[in-house]
Amino acid sequence: MRPIKVVIPFKLDCAKSRLSPVLSSAERQDLALAMLEDVIDAVSGLGDVTILLKDPPSEPGTFDRLISRPGASSQIDILDCPLELDPALNLLIEAEVKRGWPSDLLIAMADLPLMSPFDLDGLVRTPGDVVIVPGRGGGTNLILIRDERFRVSYYGLSFLKHIRKAEDLGLSAGIYESFRCGSDVDEPPDLVEALIHGRGRTPGLLKDLGFSLSGDRERARVGWVRGY
Amino acid sequence: MRPIKVVIPFKLDCAKSRLSPVLSSAERQDLALAMLEDVIDAVSGLGDVTILLKDPPSEPGTFDRLISRPGASSQIDILDCPLELDPALNLLIEAEVKRGWPSDLLIAMADLPLMSPFDLDGLVRTPGDVVIVPGRGGGTNLILIRDERFRVSYYGLSFLKHIRKAEDLGLSAGIYESFRCGSDVDEPPDLVEALIHGRGRTPGLLKDLGFSLSGDRERARVGWVRGY
Repeated sequence: MRPIKVVIPFKLDCAKSRLSPVLSSAERQDLALAMLEDVIDAVSGLGDVTILLKDPPSEPGTFDRLISRPGASSQIDILDCPLELDPALNLLIEAEVKRGWPSDLLIAMADLPLMSPFDLDGLVRTPGDVVIVPGRGGGTNLILIRDERFRVSYYGLSFLKHIRKAEDLGLSAGIYESFRCGSDVDEPPDLVEALIHGRGRTPGLLKDLGFSLSGDRERARVGWVRGY
Repeated sequence: MRPIKVVIPFKLDCAKSRLSPVLSSAERQDLALAMLEDVIDAVSGLGDVTILLKDPPSEPGTFDRLISRPGASSQIDILDCPLELDPALNLLIEAEVKRGWPSDLLIAMADLPLMSPFDLDGLVRTPGDVVIVPGRGGGTNLILIRDERFRVSYYGLSFLKHIRKAEDLGLSAGIYESFRCGSDVDEPPDLVEALIHGRGRTPGLLKDLGFSLSGDRERARVGWVRGY
């Protein structure tokens, strides 16, 4: 099997803005970092990891903890790139093409705190020039690119856009469906998934922030009253 | 492997009320029936199917099409029971116990239009005295009961409640996680999943009702403007 390089796009500034009804800006940043750490834990067995950072953090040392984790099996690099998601990722893809495409490229979103190494085994075993992992609402939560001609197109219904892009290039598109890879955390009701099914840092942080499982699913989905 | 009897609780009256912002009462009934048919198609390879009906339909013949589908490999029965979900299902479980528990029992929710026979193969192969399939927001979308001592407890965070119930009885609880089994259709944003990933009657019905994929994920999730 070819080596894999993992790329995780990440931004701290205005992170997870759709969670602003229930979390302050600082809390959303903490949550984004906890989810990033859980995603790194899930993917780091696959190969080296590059965090593609939109804005340098205002506080120095923000990522020190992530980069120098004890027992980390893979190298973690941080790459600053102020471009928007698609041009930043496609620039990185083109840089890999210029290097002779030394490894396949797995792009993983940073808001997948349920994801486990087991789920990624299934993804890596799925055939296809590209393998697309659907998220909620037509999104693409992960994409494994095995052919250097492919370029990404996020936003909108990117799941369908990525399938179409592969077809246009004559590439085969594999689909890997997974409950855990498919659970991206964007909106308040999504937090319940992280609390119930999460196994890493994220559920603990949410509990520290005052969230609990009320036992009332409707309320959990809609209201997320925090029990301070 | 022991035979499996599939039970699908269903109601037409006030069906899918949380979709009322985007669908009329009659349209919600049509959608509920389309999803039920897709669920039956997915499960019918496992064994005979019982539709546990809360209220008899006001229009005679509502279920004729479902029961007498061409090529149906399994028998489909309709059982009227005016009780609420938990007592109705537990009464049915107790009736099976009195019959000597001739088969395992799979309870499948009727709003899982993405589910395929492939997903159910994985469920049936999962070990456990009970096997629980999580839905969105802490729900239980399917539960396979292999031990006659188990009783169900839906509503609220039923996924956790079912695990706890198994533990209390000294039973082993398997968890089967699946993107398609985990995608229940309750609220307007869930319709996008049925349109994108559905393969049965449901996506066609939604298109007939005027829904389309706008390409704008945010709008799709929030607004679901129908393009008449």
